[in-house]
Amino acid sequence: MKNVDQNTITQAVLERMGQMPDARLKTIMTSLVQHLHDFARDVALSEKELMQAIQFLTRTGQTCDDKRQEFILLSDVLGLSMLTVAMNNQKPAGCTEATVFGPFFVEDAPKVALGGDVAQGAPGKPCTVSGRIVGTQGQSVGHAQIEVWQADEEGFYDVQRPDLSASQARGSLQGDGDGRFHFKTIVAQAYPIPTDGPVGDLLRATGRHP
Amino acid sequence: MKNVDQNTITQAVLERMGQMPDARLKTIMTSLVQHLHDFARDVALSEKELMQAIQFLTRTGQTCDDKRQEFILLSDVLGLSMLTVAMNNQKPAGCTEATVFGPFFVEDAPKVALGGDVAQGAPGKPCTVSGRIVGTQGQSVGHAQIEVWQADEEGFYDVQRPDLSASQARGSLQGDGDGRFHFKTIVAQAYPIPTDGPVGDLLRATGRHP
Repeated sequence: MKNVDQNTITQAVLERMGQMPDARLKTIMTSLVQHLHDFARDVALSEKELMQAIQFLTRTGQTCDDKRQEFILLSDVLGLSMLTVAMNNQKPAGCTEATVFGPFFVEDAPKVALGGDVAQGAPGKPCTVSGRIVGTQGQSVGHAQIEVWQADEEGFYDVQRPDLSASQARGSLQGDGDGRFHFKTIVAQAYPIPTDGPVGDLLRATGRHP
Repeated sequence: MKNVDQNTITQAVLERMGQMPDARLKTIMTSLVQHLHDFARDVALSEKELMQAIQFLTRTGQTCDDKRQEFILLSDVLGLSMLTVAMNNQKPAGCTEATVFGPFFVEDAPKVALGGDVAQGAPGKPCTVSGRIVGTQGQSVGHAQIEVWQADEEGFYDVQRPDLSASQARGSLQGDGDGRFHFKTIVAQAYPIPTDGPVGDLLRATGRHP
């Protein structure tokens, strides 16, 4: 690209993308190029830092496999996942906010009767969970579907245990007509995110605890 | 992350990175998170689009190997490489601007005498190149080192031809005391960037010709 400088390059790139057939893609790419360039100008990105970023993103892609998605982890750590969920699931005041879905949800979890055992042998301290589902005006939400999936006392989900042949600490319940529910399970432990990849390096470099 | 919405999430992420030991990394990450979130808010990024972006970046990383760097290509295509070069190599008015180094430079190219043959058998239409290197005031720059590396008429650099045992269309010359130089070679063809990967998909989707 000739005769461009740090201020004219942004427009030059956008003009090259002028013929974009997909209007939504054009909106996204135009904004992406502008924000990406503004970021690089803001921090006066050095050539060495750009190469470090390229190497980081390459390692991130190459850490992904059929069981691990390191770019989702990066998106989570940068708050992009939560921001996207919040934008797309805006709730009225007083309503429980939406959150990221988490990596270990499974469709068609075993049906569990109200008061039944969700743990199904998962290791951990037994407990009972109960509650009531209400609307923003305090009214009952009857017969709501409740999905439970949790880590055991070792911080593992059932799908992380290749030796298991059936679900554990996972179940699908339905609340009663008054929105009330209760079930037996084990106390869930926080599950550690994988920190042996590039995002783990980033967390350590930025002084954050996984 | 609890009790955050699309407006408070940015500050929440930045507060988690508050203890960053490396001041430069803190500057970069703070700006990155702000611009990344501003981009997502600007375009009201959907959850499906975020997942498409994650899959695109994953494929980009997995297309890289020891001979191919798809993230450098992406950085080039988005104008980020050129912007970074321009910022880090600011030249006075009237001076030839810096440009990206290109992927096929090799250290210690064969020395070629003034007037000599750079092509060394590379296929293409013969030509002669001559010029004079001057400063911004028009003064001669004598004995400057001139590096030549170019694609042949098939659009390949010598390093892309595994059957070659010596350099072709590549050489290092020195201008004379008056800044003048000339050498024989072949007419260079534009070399195609690899378009069989995710960046090729992006170029096609954005209506650009590689």
